[in-house]
Amino acid sequence: MSTAAAPIITSSALLKHWQEHRALSRRMIEAYPEDQLNTFAVGGMRTYGKLVQEMIAMCVPTLTGIATGNWDISFDESPTTRADLLKKWDAQTAEINALWPKVRPEAWQEVMDCFGYFQGPAINILLYVIDNEIHHRAQGYVYLRALGIEPPAFYARDMK
Amino acid sequence: MSTAAAPIITSSALLKHWQEHRALSRRMIEAYPEDQLNTFAVGGMRTYGKLVQEMIAMCVPTLTGIATGNWDISFDESPTTRADLLKKWDAQTAEINALWPKVRPEAWQEVMDCFGYFQGPAINILLYVIDNEIHHRAQGYVYLRALGIEPPAFYARDMK
Repeated sequence: MSTAAAPIITSSALLKHWQEHRALSRRMIEAYPEDQLNTFAVGGMRTYGKLVQEMIAMCVPTLTGIATGNWDISFDESPTTRADLLKKWDAQTAEINALWPKVRPEAWQEVMDCFGYFQGPAINILLYVIDNEIHHRAQGYVYLRALGIEPPAFYARDMK
Repeated sequence: MSTAAAPIITSSALLKHWQEHRALSRRMIEAYPEDQLNTFAVGGMRTYGKLVQEMIAMCVPTLTGIATGNWDISFDESPTTRADLLKKWDAQTAEINALWPKVRPEAWQEVMDCFGYFQGPAINILLYVIDNEIHHRAQGYVYLRALGIEPPAFYARDMK
C-alpha cells in the first residue's frame, strides 16, 4: 500500500475524537452564564445560544443522513435555556453512539448531498460538522473572555 | 474487518483536509488589518498576530517531530508584519507537503512525546494541531467582526 493511501484514522478513532470534542463543548455550555446565553454577542454576531442550537441542528441529522440516507433537518433557533441545551446535548451524545455503527464502512467515501448545501464524500461532510463545532465553540471562548469568565481548557478532552 | 476498525481517513485525505484549512487560515491573515494585527484583541486575549505566530510555531515543528523524531521548537512571539506572516505561512505550506510523505505509515499510531506537553499517538498530536488552528482562527473571526470587517467564508476551502 502506498503511503498516500495508508489509512490513518479508523472509524472508532474518529468517533472518540468527536465525542471528546463534544465533551468539551458540553463544558462550554455549562460554563456559559444563563442570563447572557441568548442576549450577549460580540460584533453583531449570533448569541452563543444560537450557535449551540446550530450545532445541535446539524450533528444528529447529518449522521442520520449518512447512516440511513434520510436527510431531514429542522432548525429551531428560538431562544431556549441552558438546561434544555444540555438535555438535548446529552440525548445526541447517546444517539451518535447508537447511529455510528449503523454507517456502512464503504458509505464514508460515497458522495452524498448534505441537505442541498454541500455535495461530497460522507467523511468530508462529517468532518465539516466537527470543524463547525470547533469553530463556533471557539467564538464562545471569546464571548466568555469578554464577559470576564475563564473558559474550560481547550486541551482537556476527557469524557465523563 | 469490523466496522469500528475500518479506516475512514487516508493519509493523503488528511493532508488535503489540513491544507484546505490552511488556505482558509491564509485568507484570514490577508483579511486582517495590518494596524490591528498586533494591537487589537477582545477580552484580554492575545492579538491575532500572536495567535497566528502560535500556529506557525506549532505546525511544521510538530510534523517534523512526527516524521523524523526530532522534536525542537522555538516560539517567537515578537510582533511581526502581515507580509512576514504570509511569507512564513507559504513556506510552511510547501514544507508540510514535503514532510508528509516522509512520515512512516505506521508512525501515525505510535505514541510520541510532543514537546513534553502531550504524550499520545502521532495522529492525535497532528489532529490537535489542526484543531488548534481552527480554534484560534475562529477567535480571529470574532475580532474581525468586532472591527466591522467581514471575514472569509468558513465553508470555502478552495486552495490556490
